[in-house]
Amino acid sequence: MTAYFPEVPKIQYGGPKSRNPLEFKHYNPDETVGEKTMKEHLRFSVVYWHTFSNPLSDPFGAGTAQRPWDDGSNSVANAQRKAKAAFEFFEKIGAPFYAFHDRDVAPEGRTLKESHANLDEVVKVLKDEQARTGVNLLWGTANLFSNPRYMHGAATSPNFDVFAFAAAQVKKAMEVTLDLGGAGYTFWGGREGYSTLLNTDMKRELDHLGRFLHMAVDYKKQIGFNGAFYIEPKPKEPTKHQYDSDAAACLNFLRTYDLLPHFKLNLETNHATLAGHEMMHEMEAAIGSGALGSIDANTGDPLLGWDTDQFPTNIYLTAQCMLCILQMGGFSTGGVNFDAKVRRESFEPIDLFYAHIGGMDAFARGLKIAQAILDDGRWQDFIKNRYASWDCALGHRVESRQASFSDLEAYILPKGDAARNVSGRQEMLENLFNDFI
Amino acid sequence: MTAYFPEVPKIQYGGPKSRNPLEFKHYNPDETVGEKTMKEHLRFSVVYWHTFSNPLSDPFGAGTAQRPWDDGSNSVANAQRKAKAAFEFFEKIGAPFYAFHDRDVAPEGRTLKESHANLDEVVKVLKDEQARTGVNLLWGTANLFSNPRYMHGAATSPNFDVFAFAAAQVKKAMEVTLDLGGAGYTFWGGREGYSTLLNTDMKRELDHLGRFLHMAVDYKKQIGFNGAFYIEPKPKEPTKHQYDSDAAACLNFLRTYDLLPHFKLNLETNHATLAGHEMMHEMEAAIGSGALGSIDANTGDPLLGWDTDQFPTNIYLTAQCMLCILQMGGFSTGGVNFDAKVRRESFEPIDLFYAHIGGMDAFARGLKIAQAILDDGRWQDFIKNRYASWDCALGHRVESRQASFSDLEAYILPKGDAARNVSGRQEMLENLFNDFI
Amino acid sequence: MTAYFPEVPKIQYGGPKSRNPLEFKHYNPDETVGEKTMKEHLRFSVVYWHTFSNPLSDPFGAGTAQRPWDDGSNSVANAQRKAKAAFEFFEKIGAPFYAFHDRDVAPEGRTLKESHANLDEVVKVLKDEQARTGVNLLWGTANLFSNPRYMHGAATSPNFDVFAFAAAQVKKAMEVTLDLGGAGYTFWGGREGYSTLLNTDMKRELDHLGRFLHMAVDYKKQIGFNGAFYIEPKPKEPTKHQYDSDAAACLNFLRTYDLLPHFKLNLETNHATLAGHEMMHEMEAAIGSGALGSIDANTGDPLLGWDTDQFPTNIYLTAQCMLCILQMGGFSTGGVNFDAKVRRESFEPIDLFYAHIGGMDAFARGLKIAQAILDDGRWQDFIKNRYASWDCALGHRVESRQASFSDLEAYILPKGDAARNVSGRQEMLENLFNDFI
Amino acid sequence: MTAYFPEVPKIQYGGPKSRNPLEFKHYNPDETVGEKTMKEHLRFSVVYWHTFSNPLSDPFGAGTAQRPWDDGSNSVANAQRKAKAAFEFFEKIGAPFYAFHDRDVAPEGRTLKESHANLDEVVKVLKDEQARTGVNLLWGTANLFSNPRYMHGAATSPNFDVFAFAAAQVKKAMEVTLDLGGAGYTFWGGREGYSTLLNTDMKRELDHLGRFLHMAVDYKKQIGFNGAFYIEPKPKEPTKHQYDSDAAACLNFLRTYDLLPHFKLNLETNHATLAGHEMMHEMEAAIGSGALGSIDANTGDPLLGWDTDQFPTNIYLTAQCMLCILQMGGFSTGGVNFDAKVRRESFEPIDLFYAHIGGMDAFARGLKIAQAILDDGRWQDFIKNRYASWDCALGHRVESRQASFSDLEAYILPKGDAARNVSGRQEMLENLFNDFI
Repeated sequence: MTAYFPEVPKIQYGGPKSRNPLEFKHYNPDETVGEKTMKEHLRFSVVYWHTFSNPLSDPFGAGTAQRPWDDGSNSVANAQRKAKAAFEFFEKIGAPFYAFHDRDVAPEGRTLKESHANLDEVVKVLKDEQARTGVNLLWGTANLFSNPRYMHGAATSPNFDVFAFAAAQVKKAMEVTLDLGGAGYTFWGGREGYSTLLNTDMKRELDHLGRFLHMAVDYKKQIGFNGAFYIEPKPKEPTKHQYDSDAAACLNFLRTYDLLPHFKLNLETNHATLAGHEMMHEMEAAIGSGALGSIDANTGDPLLGWDTDQFPTNIYLTAQCMLCILQMGGFSTGGVNFDAKVRRESFEPIDLFYAHIGGMDAFARGLKIAQAILDDGRWQDFIKNRYASWDCALGHRVESRQASFSDLEAYILPKGDAARNVSGRQEMLENLFNDFI
Repeated sequence: MTAYFPEVPKIQYGGPKSRNPLEFKHYNPDETVGEKTMKEHLRFSVVYWHTFSNPLSDPFGAGTAQRPWDDGSNSVANAQRKAKAAFEFFEKIGAPFYAFHDRDVAPEGRTLKESHANLDEVVKVLKDEQARTGVNLLWGTANLFSNPRYMHGAATSPNFDVFAFAAAQVKKAMEVTLDLGGAGYTFWGGREGYSTLLNTDMKRELDHLGRFLHMAVDYKKQIGFNGAFYIEPKPKEPTKHQYDSDAAACLNFLRTYDLLPHFKLNLETNHATLAGHEMMHEMEAAIGSGALGSIDANTGDPLLGWDTDQFPTNIYLTAQCMLCILQMGGFSTGGVNFDAKVRRESFEPIDLFYAHIGGMDAFARGLKIAQAILDDGRWQDFIKNRYASWDCALGHRVESRQASFSDLEAYILPKGDAARNVSGRQEMLENLFNDFI
Repeated sequence: MTAYFPEVPKIQYGGPKSRNPLEFKHYNPDETVGEKTMKEHLRFSVVYWHTFSNPLSDPFGAGTAQRPWDDGSNSVANAQRKAKAAFEFFEKIGAPFYAFHDRDVAPEGRTLKESHANLDEVVKVLKDEQARTGVNLLWGTANLFSNPRYMHGAATSPNFDVFAFAAAQVKKAMEVTLDLGGAGYTFWGGREGYSTLLNTDMKRELDHLGRFLHMAVDYKKQIGFNGAFYIEPKPKEPTKHQYDSDAAACLNFLRTYDLLPHFKLNLETNHATLAGHEMMHEMEAAIGSGALGSIDANTGDPLLGWDTDQFPTNIYLTAQCMLCILQMGGFSTGGVNFDAKVRRESFEPIDLFYAHIGGMDAFARGLKIAQAILDDGRWQDFIKNRYASWDCALGHRVESRQASFSDLEAYILPKGDAARNVSGRQEMLENLFNDFI
Repeated sequence: MTAYFPEVPKIQYGGPKSRNPLEFKHYNPDETVGEKTMKEHLRFSVVYWHTFSNPLSDPFGAGTAQRPWDDGSNSVANAQRKAKAAFEFFEKIGAPFYAFHDRDVAPEGRTLKESHANLDEVVKVLKDEQARTGVNLLWGTANLFSNPRYMHGAATSPNFDVFAFAAAQVKKAMEVTLDLGGAGYTFWGGREGYSTLLNTDMKRELDHLGRFLHMAVDYKKQIGFNGAFYIEPKPKEPTKHQYDSDAAACLNFLRTYDLLPHFKLNLETNHATLAGHEMMHEMEAAIGSGALGSIDANTGDPLLGWDTDQFPTNIYLTAQCMLCILQMGGFSTGGVNFDAKVRRESFEPIDLFYAHIGGMDAFARGLKIAQAILDDGRWQDFIKNRYASWDCALGHRVESRQASFSDLEAYILPKGDAARNVSGRQEMLENLFNDFI
């Protein structure tokens, strides 16, 4: 069997004292944190597109990536070789999951039929490699944004044929995902938005998107796919304004079109940042609606206005993410998906290892920190006690919908003013959090 | 009768050729545009707070405003004198409406009862002045953000007493609004959000807010107030993150708590900008849910990250606003409300006139431009024709929920690819728009 | 002679009443505005790269551009055909200038020598076409950012060979610019910055950049190139942080390395926006140092964090630009350069015409508005009068460096406080400006 | 002697294991890190204004601060009591320095003379307290932004009297700083900028600012003040655009007016963020010009567009700051100044302790991390080796200004292309950095 990363052995768990940058210092899949192993908590997934299909170009420059297994051809054979390199990487890095778009794994053909056939040929290899390695599919998806056909949108295209094409493409991608035992299927509508409102009927486009997703739900039932459906918010880029701009916009859309029972959100820090929210805000917004499904691990640069998709290394961020995940009871079908790419200047194969090791270690530290905070208990107690004044008869009546403005007026008018507030103690809580970093 | 602006006569309609900065050049209330007069279309409203109660301080400096009628005291008499100055201004500027918070018009007392009494004393004057001038109340509201009591929120405060106090304050403000024949009542939750998620139970706070608004709906019915209820989105400032951050977040909240039938949105350009949206986006998002009620006329600075609340003078913006308003069939209870303040350096009384004249003229021009675009018809035709490919049998079946992914696959697979796209013509449409500027 | 835009005749000057989107409504080259013709004032330039070499791809999708004259090959013949199409466009659109990078006009070869040879072959055609049409070169430049070689910078690369390669490439581009009678040469350092400070010696890289530009100055003298040298600020994209981030950073760099006498700035609205400045700020900053040379006409989207390079249609912006240009006495070697690209969805050849017509018309309107404001005189008088209090003996002594803190204390102490301020009248001035829109 | 914080003893050094939030866990003044003690490295300073004079109001709400020693009066006696409370705090928190504006420590009088007298009365107490406690003045400054007099600027005001008033105020503040043995004097021009360019002669205003600072330099010599002069960049807020917008703008200004020899920069993370830079960028920009003097410790919120002035708790940030400081050889006159305020909701006196403990601990950790990275050496070696290709004959000739474009062309042309690049290794370096967190 060919080795595509001959110089890299399976990455070891070296522990914090190792100076070898090709060893994990914090991630150890079998180490127990709280009630589960790290592997069960984190459910890491490597993305096919950035790690195996991205040439590392940018709007001002050509691709730089050195990928010796890739002959640059658009052939199925090249795609199959890439699949083998990918699984070698998944194994060596110790990731239990991966994720892909249809067009990452197999080349688009001249016709849809040809594209389907190409996909089938590569899926055979993926299936074999899954069996060989035990690496599983976290979720599949269809690329409805790269081909010029989708310039005006896919499910929201004004061109009906494009809508139909997208439907057929998603249908196939769902079948393939089912075939590969995928735990979920994700909808990211990169072109479902607009470049200018001057040429757009927003309401009609959203109606079409609603219909599209209902057909997906119907087809899911028809074929017996039991995995989760995810919708992934992002506010902009490539369009000026995507419709699924943030968690609230997605939830509002799903509620409007009676789709909320069928979808959960796949959240990403970089998208949250672009939308003006902290990741923790988006996570709590989703959790509050019972709709957090999975997360993308990558982060962005708060000073840059595009999706840098950087590997996460900030342990404040990873600790906050894991605090939310632990408090909601952990992932079920979802996981921590590295929708991240190495920098254009980090173009050597070895950089893929450094990047994933750093990201996985950062999440492992975040998990341990979050578990320690929860075990300590002071933080949750503080929040709970902050609302203690609601534990009175009238407070309970308000919360159970039995009180009126008149009741509240009758209560407060004799008092003259409200009882004194106490400090919100933000600084003390930030220090408390820092004690666990 | 004392004149508080002795040097300024009633502002005249001078027409475009006037060089007098104290004359309207574009706004003429009785001029017909389309099917209504300008006055009926625009329903201008002056805000009490910025124009009569704002000292023009900022976080780095003391107030600068020269308001000769204001002796600086916290007395009812001073408030009553301010009311008279306000109505003199409303009359001279020719605004048919005004809007206020309870605490703008009357001083807060040592107790809630005293505050209520103060308010009643000033409301008498407001009522007399409304009768005298024919100026009406566009909407009333309660200030639930300035007093330190509301530091942690009002309806979302962890302090139950604060929640009760807010309820009693809103109850009174609704009564006063009814008494003054107000066309609406607005909820802006400036403190309904958080400074840090580290001390916040977001879900519980949102539940409390939902309960609060349901009690308001109940009380509205109880007292027979038939005006509209508005909720006003803003993403941040004063809090780090308000819950009602943008139109989508408000609509999602209203849908979650079954409040959508009872509320419309009051949108503001400056708040849209801070949330990363164009005003036109927010307006279309609201209109798509049948939920656009009223707008604030003020604008912000896209390069500044706070609410500058500037008077609008950009006719691209006002034309876009009026295009949305005209297309939705005009305002019913709402209007164009100048939630705008003169710059801290524009501290003389006469600046209030320059500012409102400029803003009203800008909206008058926007109205005429929007009407001309609609009368021309090319723009609407372009958008409509863009979706023409949906006018086919299968397109109709999709739109009427009778088609499946399999139907669409059967349609597109033989074609091999989608029919060719046509250009989105953004540049041509921008030129078309410019032809009307 | 082949026509590459057979369906488009030379664009006519139709005047404001024309409904034909393929006619100018405002731009008329021979119309006199103030003391010069529009053509002399505006000195429009079309950019080769966006209009003839940009495939209209984006980070999430492949190119869409339909360019029938382009066979997609990397051949000199294809490049020569493109040159002819370009000049047909320049003529039809009526642009007196164009601008290019070396690699836009001719394909990069396998070696530098081959690249030089390719360039020479195409330059012959450019020279012929210039002679045939009378269209001239506003400025030339070298592309030091697209090739992977420049991933870490060109003049600031840690790889010395890359520095040398860039030097040789600029040397050749300067020679070609001289040969074509170019009025200037521009340095835009798209990769002269960093992805992370963690791997960067900023001081050493800036020293290298200083040396590079001094060698360019030396070589300019050596070959007798009398055109202007421009440096173009941009804060970010493609790098995380370019060194030439805004006008102030460029001026500071030029002053630090004694280069200010040899360079002027080429400013762009989109870059100003990304740096957090208004274009007018950047222009005044450059003019204040006698260093404004030329401008790029394109604009951005203040809500998006990347360089959208849109065609300008906002006449507030174009009026502000032309106000600065007129006040500094007009361009000498510079001009209004359309460094703008049609949207990815505006992929048809005809869109190139709509886009340039709109942009040129917008600048023509801006010019007329600016001239009208200056002719009116109220605006300049207001500003001048605002500083009238400085026209006193002590004021003059301060301005001529003859006063001290003690003098000023002696003057103000007996007064007790400063004389009263007068309003800054921002709203009135915005209305005044609007009177000319 | 009255205790103003009776419940708080002097803060102890508890070490990492302490659960007491009123103990330092990391900061220990006498602990040696590298070649100096923590106290010598960090030179912490508490700011008078935020900690003792800020009512914790915001643009939407009144002050909340509980400061029992403050009777709210504008009297000298109240100011003197506040001074004693301040020094009790400085002592208990263990800060060796403090900083103030003239108007924080003493009330402004009806005339400048009265203001001077008030200041003198409080300075006596400050002097006594300095002697009693050993706490020293890091720097003094004059508040030239809060009084309405300065609405249009101080040194850049169009009102000459205001310029004169500012001069007299700075003169006095410099005298007082000298009298108190201050190690420096800071110029922050909060109003030195504009609200709109429509009413502003930017060039003339900058000339006045240049003159003002030259007079300050002259007066410094005259009175024999040997402390450092700092200028502090900030891009906006309160003005739309300050002239001293970032490090580059300050350096460019200082170079333009020949002031660079006399000034160093006082940098602040929050201001860097608002200007679109990382703090590390600003620090390296200043260090590269030999102009980094001191830093403000406070941080901002990258998602908010105003100066939140939060206490720093992010150890990535503090480590980056200290890495720069250590590499430049440490502070001379400057220090780490907490220009930070507790949140409006953290209104109790005890919150001042939590906040400073957290900030000082965060910087202590940052110092230790930075020292460990430097001691390890891998990071510096990586950067140095990255430029190794410059260590060739021609590289040295370029760096010593002895090479030309022709030399470089002669070198590279035979090679055909540049030598291969190596990866920038950003991910590996981020992991390396993380190993020390």
